[in-house]
Amino acid sequence: MKITIAQLNYHIGNFDRNRDLICNTIKKVKSEGSDLVVFSELCIPGYPPLDLLDRLDFIEKCRTTVNEIAKECTGIVAIVGSPTLNTKPEGKKLFNSALVLSEGEIIFSANKALLPTYDIFDEYRHFEPENRFTVFSFKGKKLAITICEDLWDEQPFDNEFEKTRLYTVSPMEELSKQNPDIIINISASPFSYSKVEAKENIFRSKAKKYKIPVISVNQVGANTELIFDGASLVVNGKGEIIDRLPFFEEAVKTYSLEEVNSGTTNVNYTRPATISLIHSALVLGIRDYFAKSGLKSGIVGLSGGIDSAICLYLATEALGNKNVRAVLMPSRYSSDHSVNDAIALAKTLNVQYDIVNIEKPFSAFEDVLSPLFNGKNKDVTEENIQARVRAILLMAISNKYGCIVLNTSNKSETAVGYGTLYGDMAGGLSVIGDVYKTDVYKLSEYINREKTIIPENTINKAPSAELRPDQRDTDSLPDYDKLDAILYQYIELQNPAGKIISEGSDKDIVNKVISMIDFNEYKRYQAPPVLRISSKAFGAGRRMPLVARY
Amino acid sequence: MKITIAQLNYHIGNFDRNRDLICNTIKKVKSEGSDLVVFSELCIPGYPPLDLLDRLDFIEKCRTTVNEIAKECTGIVAIVGSPTLNTKPEGKKLFNSALVLSEGEIIFSANKALLPTYDIFDEYRHFEPENRFTVFSFKGKKLAITICEDLWDEQPFDNEFEKTRLYTVSPMEELSKQNPDIIINISASPFSYSKVEAKENIFRSKAKKYKIPVISVNQVGANTELIFDGASLVVNGKGEIIDRLPFFEEAVKTYSLEEVNSGTTNVNYTRPATISLIHSALVLGIRDYFAKSGLKSGIVGLSGGIDSAICLYLATEALGNKNVRAVLMPSRYSSDHSVNDAIALAKTLNVQYDIVNIEKPFSAFEDVLSPLFNGKNKDVTEENIQARVRAILLMAISNKYGCIVLNTSNKSETAVGYGTLYGDMAGGLSVIGDVYKTDVYKLSEYINREKTIIPENTINKAPSAELRPDQRDTDSLPDYDKLDAILYQYIELQNPAGKIISEGSDKDIVNKVISMIDFNEYKRYQAPPVLRISSKAFGAGRRMPLVARY
Repeated sequence: MKITIAQLNYHIGNFDRNRDLICNTIKKVKSEGSDLVVFSELCIPGYPPLDLLDRLDFIEKCRTTVNEIAKECTGIVAIVGSPTLNTKPEGKKLFNSALVLSEGEIIFSANKALLPTYDIFDEYRHFEPENRFTVFSFKGKKLAITICEDLWDEQPFDNEFEKTRLYTVSPMEELSKQNPDIIINISASPFSYSKVEAKENIFRSKAKKYKIPVISVNQVGANTELIFDGASLVVNGKGEIIDRLPFFEEAVKTYSLEEVNSGTTNVNYTRPATISLIHSALVLGIRDYFAKSGLKSGIVGLSGGIDSAICLYLATEALGNKNVRAVLMPSRYSSDHSVNDAIALAKTLNVQYDIVNIEKPFSAFEDVLSPLFNGKNKDVTEENIQARVRAILLMAISNKYGCIVLNTSNKSETAVGYGTLYGDMAGGLSVIGDVYKTDVYKLSEYINREKTIIPENTINKAPSAELRPDQRDTDSLPDYDKLDAILYQYIELQNPAGKIISEGSDKDIVNKVISMIDFNEYKRYQAPPVLRISSKAFGAGRRMPLVARY
Repeated sequence: MKITIAQLNYHIGNFDRNRDLICNTIKKVKSEGSDLVVFSELCIPGYPPLDLLDRLDFIEKCRTTVNEIAKECTGIVAIVGSPTLNTKPEGKKLFNSALVLSEGEIIFSANKALLPTYDIFDEYRHFEPENRFTVFSFKGKKLAITICEDLWDEQPFDNEFEKTRLYTVSPMEELSKQNPDIIINISASPFSYSKVEAKENIFRSKAKKYKIPVISVNQVGANTELIFDGASLVVNGKGEIIDRLPFFEEAVKTYSLEEVNSGTTNVNYTRPATISLIHSALVLGIRDYFAKSGLKSGIVGLSGGIDSAICLYLATEALGNKNVRAVLMPSRYSSDHSVNDAIALAKTLNVQYDIVNIEKPFSAFEDVLSPLFNGKNKDVTEENIQARVRAILLMAISNKYGCIVLNTSNKSETAVGYGTLYGDMAGGLSVIGDVYKTDVYKLSEYINREKTIIPENTINKAPSAELRPDQRDTDSLPDYDKLDAILYQYIELQNPAGKIISEGSDKDIVNKVISMIDFNEYKRYQAPPVLRISSKAFGAGRRMPLVARY
């Protein structure tokens, strides 16, 4: 039996496009002799469809699209993922289903039993969990068809407080009673740099436990915050990875079941370095955000600092240098080297750049506000005005020329609120809002690995917002090494202050940092969507009360 | 037996305050002879604690607070709501529990079985559903202790696609097998103007079905978006409402079980008019947002139009006129009557106001951008600059004086994206972002019911953003009557275009309005939190993909 993995990039709600992508793949692999082609979880609507699932017309459109695809399945069988109606009188209205299509019909279906409802996942919001399990018999073999989390009944969490067994059911344990020959797992599992190995281990451990191969099919592509890495796996019955499809690229590949059964480890299984995965994830995240919202070009406010430099570079990688422009917006406090470093980068990347000095609008605000501010000292107000003047300029160019402003805030400053709401926190998409400052430096090293792209001076100078004379980030914040260590423990690991202190961080610094994080929830509430690369990003995966006192 | 309803206002994570509030109430009602005092769902941490529940230290703090309160329960029994640890090896780590406290101990606990995971609710994100049910025996009576949704196994939804039976278990059906004498329901059920009667009916139908009284205890107070209305109910065994605690106020009231059993309908049960409930909800929403974030004063940009007028009025009701200031920010396109109407209102409300003309900063932007915009026609870009200049001014005053900017966008314009991101969409809290424009007019009538507060001219003039000469809202939008009818059907009822058209709206208008709503998801992603009064508000209760095409 020949089984094909179709690792593809779907567009949420774009049914015609998704159908054509699937049908063209079916046609192609059928001509190549495949017996069974497997697409990823909820490939029909694209994942995650969120509350579009609350609309009956949307579900109806899923149904008709599945039927159209089923007609394409002559002489070949396909597995697709789609929401289906729960016809029982009670429970959630939908199932998250894997549908087996053959000769115009749905000949088998399996519904997801374990519904991830944590972090960025809200599946129980829409789906009823399945509690009955059956293998699918095909060409003399029994296939255990599972949907993503169905194999994740045991999993590690970064937050030690979480149970490793989050569910009271194990779908594979139930299916194993029917002696399946292979596990098929269709998924829509987003990238997180700390989970790559953990994901492998899930598949490897199930293969080993049940002594049968696992074929996993993950979607690829980004949908706003979530970046799906593909990297679909083939594991033999000994739990060895015998092949892996590429990270962050579409790929279609066919395997014979015999080959998989007898297969031995393939060189392809080597994991790329984490920093290169993060780089590829962010490029894909930008590219798909633009492609899927139908816009071509982006704009970056270029300060001469490392954050905006990295973002401009990533944008050119994603969109091409012709589709990216930069704006330098120096103020009375900007250093010459900032402007020079910014120009140098724009020239290296061959990106159009403009220089707009913010002095005139900034001083106009100082003027008109002076009657109200009479006698008050300068403070963060005036710093924020500068940041907001820059946002107005970027948004104006964005409005006039139809391009999207890319936000350049990093995760460290977003965490502690070292940024101006409606100022440097503005933008359509936050490129590095899930990348700590220390990892921004690692990214710059990676980008410069063959030749200098990010100017050395941009990398080496002390970080500064340049909103008052001789300002340095370290005036307000601990060194980024120390800061990021605390942030990671508090945000990703969800450790309390006491534990962070007991593990070596300074008590006063820890308490100050944590109170800054907590106090600034209100700013992050209004921040742009953040490309997610970690196990805990700001945005939909982290939901904090704004008016709590804790 | 004397049972006390304690309808109180908790602060999320403020354990000391919540404990003192609870303990003081216990002391007081004990001295008045109560046997059992019932507090609301998750009163220990406050509701909703969201992802604070992911922290072990937060749960530990709940536990110690419960123990402190238990010590106060000498000669009286209390029921409190708290998260508790799920000690089984698998499943979610917590239960949402009702704990019965007596003589320093937890003598009984009931865990929530039906976990609302729709709209603004995410309870399965944190809690394991209970599947075993026991009544609590107390003073010769059997109490069926249920937690909020546990009684909502059958409920109507505005979206017809939703099942009325959302769960496969009925906790009350299970408990009824043990012949309880009364149903106690502790809840944290947020206000929605269309659900007041539906909520009553839930309690009435359960009382009638099981022929026993229901005592419901709801929390009161607002936590950012969510406004809890209290309005705790006492229903006799015939399903008649015999008493209701006030809407939007703390209240503590004691009933004898005999009185409840024999009780007949009380005059108090009359529902206030919907518009007065909305008014009270918004005032409480503003007041608690400020009180619970520790800030005293607010600022409103006053245009002379009806939206900002209503918001200024509501802010003075919530915070007092001394804690609210207004800023008028006329432009070259502002009409004289706008300024005069705004001044008239500020004077009526006795609120400090300042006038800052935006011409100087606006023209400074035009100047510095002219080299980049050379030859391009004026368009929405210049309109947005004006709105953003106003936001900078408001935020600057907010920064300098430590007050919160109140956002004045209504639901109609938020829906269709008729507003400027980082401009008039800015602010710490959206006051009327869940109030359609036609309801804004109704609110103004209600506010003026005894004397004219909102100037007649503000109410009667044609709505205009005044961002270009002679601009009218109707240049870009249908009449608000028509618009709001479509919006309600699309947003609250989630009807597809075809159904909205078949019910009488113009096809072209419906399609245009829906495409505006869908296109502007990206703006709403970055909007401030919205005080929720409807069954479907923008924000956490409505989660839409940004890069979908549907």
